[in-house]
Parts: sequence; structure tokens; C-alpha cells
Amino acid sequence: MEILQKISDGLIALKQKKPLVHHITNYVTVNDCANITLAIGASPVMADDIEEVEEMVSFASSLVLNIGTLNSRSIESMLVVGKKAKEKGIPIVFDPVGVGATNLRTVTAKQIIEDVRPDVIRGNMSEMKILAGIATEIKGVDSVADEMDGEKVALYLSQKLSCVIAITGKQDVIAQGNKVCLIHNGHPILSEVTGTGCMATSLIASYCGANDDLFVGAAAGVMTMGLAGELARQSLKAGEGIGTFRARLFDAVWNMTPEILEKGGTITNG
Amino acid sequence: MEILQKISDGLIALKQKKPLVHHITNYVTVNDCANITLAIGASPVMADDIEEVEEMVSFASSLVLNIGTLNSRSIESMLVVGKKAKEKGIPIVFDPVGVGATNLRTVTAKQIIEDVRPDVIRGNMSEMKILAGIATEIKGVDSVADEMDGEKVALYLSQKLSCVIAITGKQDVIAQGNKVCLIHNGHPILSEVTGTGCMATSLIASYCGANDDLFVGAAAGVMTMGLAGELARQSLKAGEGIGTFRARLFDAVWNMTPEILEKGGTITNG
Amino acid sequence: MEILQKISDGLIALKQKKPLVHHITNYVTVNDCANITLAIGASPVMADDIEEVEEMVSFASSLVLNIGTLNSRSIESMLVVGKKAKEKGIPIVFDPVGVGATNLRTVTAKQIIEDVRPDVIRGNMSEMKILAGIATEIKGVDSVADEMDGEKVALYLSQKLSCVIAITGKQDVIAQGNKVCLIHNGHPILSEVTGTGCMATSLIASYCGANDDLFVGAAAGVMTMGLAGELARQSLKAGEGIGTFRARLFDAVWNMTPEILEKGGTITNG
Repeated sequence: MEILQKISDGLIALKQKKPLVHHITNYVTVNDCANITLAIGASPVMADDIEEVEEMVSFASSLVLNIGTLNSRSIESMLVVGKKAKEKGIPIVFDPVGVGATNLRTVTAKQIIEDVRPDVIRGNMSEMKILAGIATEIKGVDSVADEMDGEKVALYLSQKLSCVIAITGKQDVIAQGNKVCLIHNGHPILSEVTGTGCMATSLIASYCGANDDLFVGAAAGVMTMGLAGELARQSLKAGEGIGTFRARLFDAVWNMTPEILEKGGTITNG
Repeated sequence: MEILQKISDGLIALKQKKPLVHHITNYVTVNDCANITLAIGASPVMADDIEEVEEMVSFASSLVLNIGTLNSRSIESMLVVGKKAKEKGIPIVFDPVGVGATNLRTVTAKQIIEDVRPDVIRGNMSEMKILAGIATEIKGVDSVADEMDGEKVALYLSQKLSCVIAITGKQDVIAQGNKVCLIHNGHPILSEVTGTGCMATSLIASYCGANDDLFVGAAAGVMTMGLAGELARQSLKAGEGIGTFRARLFDAVWNMTPEILEKGGTITNG
Repeated sequence: MEILQKISDGLIALKQKKPLVHHITNYVTVNDCANITLAIGASPVMADDIEEVEEMVSFASSLVLNIGTLNSRSIESMLVVGKKAKEKGIPIVFDPVGVGATNLRTVTAKQIIEDVRPDVIRGNMSEMKILAGIATEIKGVDSVADEMDGEKVALYLSQKLSCVIAITGKQDVIAQGNKVCLIHNGHPILSEVTGTGCMATSLIASYCGANDDLFVGAAAGVMTMGLAGELARQSLKAGEGIGTFRARLFDAVWNMTPEILEKGGTITNG
């Protein structure tokens, strides 16, 4: 229960600080990421040109790097802005979208992890297993990973990469060092809207921009998305569908309060 | 009536296979294309960097090429990924947005048609008349085209380019070789939302990724969009408008069933 | 009251002409800009490749330049298309998003203003104060600007840059030469949706594409956005939030009529 209280306090801190969250993200879900950041009470800025990213991130409280639609130009900007954010000491949240699907994504993710050393990584189980393979550079880790459950993958990666790991999916897992927790919120319909993963990453960065405890920040972001998905789904009436759900998802994040988190959030120690 | 049954069966096949649809598309409506692909039950992936498109398309069941906001970088990727898709034998659906408006678009569309040889082309009547002019390279074809009705343009282009032609507008026409059909679904309000053409293209690619009969796939995509537009329009109450319509359009595609297609779809032989 | 009548007539002119509005804008809110342009009754086209922008703008009735996510490629296209639009004599509406935040934005905004000479500039008060500093190139102007109220900043900039100035925020101000007016519509919730500023710019360009009086066009665009925001906010029921608000905002713009503007618009001379 203690962590649920910290998550709820984390929302209060977020609403008070209104952190500026600098994103370099993909052009598919960028509008959703900006709107979810605003909905929870933070402030988004999207800028990716290499000539301005260092200056822009100097105002920011946290940074999102998302490789959903990467290209040579944005990769270079990500590396540059990531180093600047590290220098400045603000949390960097990395979303390795589609890592493993192509060599470009795998190589880029590896480079971002090595050069930038993100503070939080959020992805689904497939992506995390690929990263676990990269991290060890031992053949066969993938198949080992297949046998691991989410908690083990998350703990393994967190220790290997010295960062907070957030795995989202049927089962959400957050790990940091030897701490791990499971979040039981969420609804399968979230996977039928593009960008709910990217939006969870933006929410994590919004919380982490206002809270020093990044384990709590990651859990808070993931719980907010999951709980909002549940509430949006419950609100659907006969004949409504995914378009209405999407609007209600933003409604639910915008209406999120410490009380709703405490009442609806379900989190257990791993 | 036989074709309506095939369309309805096509939706069953789509829902079972959940085909991955690789898109290289424009940054204006890309989010809508991803969401409509999910709403009908397929799975979208958007990737346009030349270093990864060939690898990415290797997982895909169909490919969308859409020149809505083309640039030299994306054109090159389209040609490369198109050839790879052709090699692999998956259907390529081309949306020649704005062809004829600028020389760049006309030249690019011509190059894509010649080099990639798309399996389905979807556009409005103006775009198709331009393509008919390109195809023949005879001056005055445009004015000839002006006198042709939709069926004639569609049949002419289909035979000339050896592909399925889908013309959408007041009157939707699908042609393949010497087969042609007219779809009478749709509502003028669809033209007041950006990207309904692009989304129809994504729906066609979703159907064609799960059905070998591309004539049926093209008809199914166009009918799904038109019928969803009718249902979304009917659902509007006093004071509601285009924003609510847009949400309901996604609702209607998400709620589409073989039964709704069979009951609401209106299609005739040309 | 006279200006309110002109604004209301401006909407009639817009609906009759359905002007084509060419945008070079950012990838964050581009879909919203296209949809708001359609919602008010104009027609959007988004094209930014340098090889086609001059040809594309030749069909347009007005041009939007928005530096929300600028890069070297789009900057060059903006300068080229701006000069072409000027040659052609269509109104150019400039949105200096984030000017002052980075040197790249400040330098680019300055270059656009000098080389293209936009007809209307819309921004928030911070952006306008930066532009006022650029315009004078006298150190300390920023602090002078800090003491100025909105009307003075708007009048100063309008005279300096020989264009219409629209400052949006808590207080909307429109100035042209020595004319100034204040628009009292709007709602704070508009700042909780990304792109409401960009959309106001698109609405201004929609009105200016159909009305020669750019002071009226700018006031009409700003009033339409503000009034639509009020109406959308009023329509929210308990439990609804920002997602529903966003849909209703488009509903309200789509349902806007001369009568609604005349009844709900509140404008005073400065």
C-alpha cells in the first residue's frame, strides 16, 4: 500500500510543478503524446532539429526518446539531446518501439542505451527480451528470456542497465535494482488504439519530471494509463466503440485525481 | 449479390488473420490510418527509413504507398520497399494523393506505377483521370477522360495498368480487367474530414492482406468506409458535428460485422 | 458592432468561396489544422517539399507558415513558398511557434519576417514580445515590452512590421496600423489541448483566403476559435473531459454560423 500512496502523492507533485517534457518521438502518435502530457497536467514540447534540441532541453524537466519512426536525422538528434539531458541531470525515458523488428532499430536502441544511459525504459515484453539479448550479447539469451516471466526479465534488465524498467502488456511490471512491483490495472482494448504505449511513456516522463523517485514515477505513469483505460472502457455504451473510447481515455487521464488512483489502483510487490 | 457475400467473408478472413499492413504514408493522416487499420482488426506498422523498410515489409501481409506529403527521402523508400513487396508477392495498394496538382506528384506516381506495379490503386476521379493520361501518354486523353463516366475510366485504367482500380467519390467504382462494380454506400460528410480517402486505402490494404481476391478486397475496403460513414452520420444528434462524427466513424468501423455489411452494403454490377 | 457584422459577413464569404489554404506546418498538430480548416468550410493542402511548394501554392487562396517543428528542409521551403505567395498576392499568415525558446526559432522567424513579409502574424504574448525585440534590434526592448499591455505590443508590432498582429491568450488583441480591437471570447481549457493556437492560425488563414480585409479576417479566426471553445466547454457533462472537449470543439467550429458569431461574439475597440 505504501507505494500506492507514493503514486498518489506523485500526481499531486506533478500537478503542482507542471513539468516541461521534451519529446523526440514518432510522427504517428506525436499528437496523442502531446495531448496526454497536457491531460495529466504537464507541458509537452516537441523539437527534433539538431540545431535546437540542446537549447530546448535546457528548459525541460524530463526527456522522452521514442524510436517509433526513426531516421538518420532524428537518431543523431536523440543522441545529442540525450547527452545534454544527462549532463543536466534530468530523467530520460526511452521507448524502444519495435526494437528487434529491424536491424536499424536494434542498433539504434543499443546505441541510445550505451551512449545516453536512459533512466527509465518502457516497452512491451518482446521489446524487453530483445534488449535483454543486446545487453548480454550472449547467444541464446532470447530463448532463455522466453522462459523467464516478466518480473525476472524486468529485474535482470534493470540490474544490467542500471535503470528503471517498465514492461507493459497483459501484466505490467516495474523494476529497479532488486525492487519489483506488478500493476494489475489496464484493459485489452488499450491495444486496439495506436500509441497507448507511447502515451504511457509520456505519462512516465510527466511523473518523473516532478518526482525524484523514478520507480514511483514509472509505476504512476503505467497505472494512470491502465486505470484510465479501465474507466474509459466502462463508460462505453451500446453502439459506441474505439473512437469514443479514445476520447474517453483522454477524459479519464484529465480527470485523474489522487483519490481515483488510491481507490482504483491495484499494485502488488513482485 | 454474390460479391456482397464475398465481401462479408472477406471481413471474417481479415479478423482471423489480423494481417500486418506496412504503410509509407503522409504525416497529416498517419495516425488515422493506423487507428482505422486497428479498428477493422488488422495491425499497422509505419516505417519509412530506407535502412529499414525492406526488413520491415518482410513481416507484412500488404503494403500501402501514399504520396500525401511526399519528399525525396520518402519517394526513394517507396520505390525500394515496393520492389521488395513485389518480390515477396504481397499486395501493394497505392494512393496517388494529389497527382496532377504538381509535377513532383505526377512524376512520382508515374515512377511508382512503372517500377513497383501496384496491385490496387485507390483515388478520386480527378486523380484517376490524371493517371489515365499518364498511362497513355497521348495528349488529349484528359479531355477524353472528362467525357468518360467512372466505370469507363476505371475499366480503362485497370486494363492499361493491369491492376485493380478503386475510384471513390459520389459514386464508388471498382474495376479489374473487364469486371466492374458500383458501390452505393457513403455520405457527403466523409469529404469534410481529412484522411477519409487515405483511410479507405488502409482498409483496402487490410482486406487485401487477408484475401487473395483483390477485387473483393478493394470493394470491401471501400464499402466498409462508406457504410461506416452512413452509420456515423445517422448517429449524430442535434448540436453534434464533425468532431463527434469522426469518433463515431472509428466506432462504426470497429463495430463492423459480416452481418452489418450484408444488411447495409449496396453494390451493383456495372 | 460594425466589426462584428463584418466578421459575420466574413464567414458567409468563406463558406461561399471555400478557399484553398496551403500549409507548411508542424507534424504535431497538422491533422488538427487540416480538420479545423475543413470544419469552417475551407479546404486545406499540406505540402512542404521544395520541389512542389511553388506549384502547389499557385492554386491557393492563402498560405500558413508555422514553425512548430521546423528543420532545415522545411525552413527553406517556407522561404521559397512565401516569396511565391507574395508574388501572387495571396495573404500569408505566420505562426512563430516557440520563437525565443531557441536561437534557431528566433533566427528563422526573423528571416521569414524579413524575406517573406507575412500579412498576418498570430502568436501568444511571449512570442510577440520576442518579435518586438527582433524588430527593433534595440537591447532592452524586451523589458520595455514587459511593461506594455497587449494593445500596445500589438500596435507597436503592427506598425513596425506593416502587418496585422493577432495576440491570443487570456486577452485576444488584433491590431493593424493604428486600429486595435479586443476579443473577449475563449476559455482557459483551450490551453489544455495541443494545437489550439495553430488551429486559430489556420482559421485566420481560412477567413483571409476569402476576405480582403485582413484585420477582419484575423479577428474572425480568433473569435471563431474562442467562441467554439466556450460552446464546447459549456456542453461538457459530469465525467467528461478534455477528449470529449476536443471533439466538441470541432463540432462547434463546424456548426458555426453568422448568427452564432453575432450573438456570442464579444469584441470591443481598444
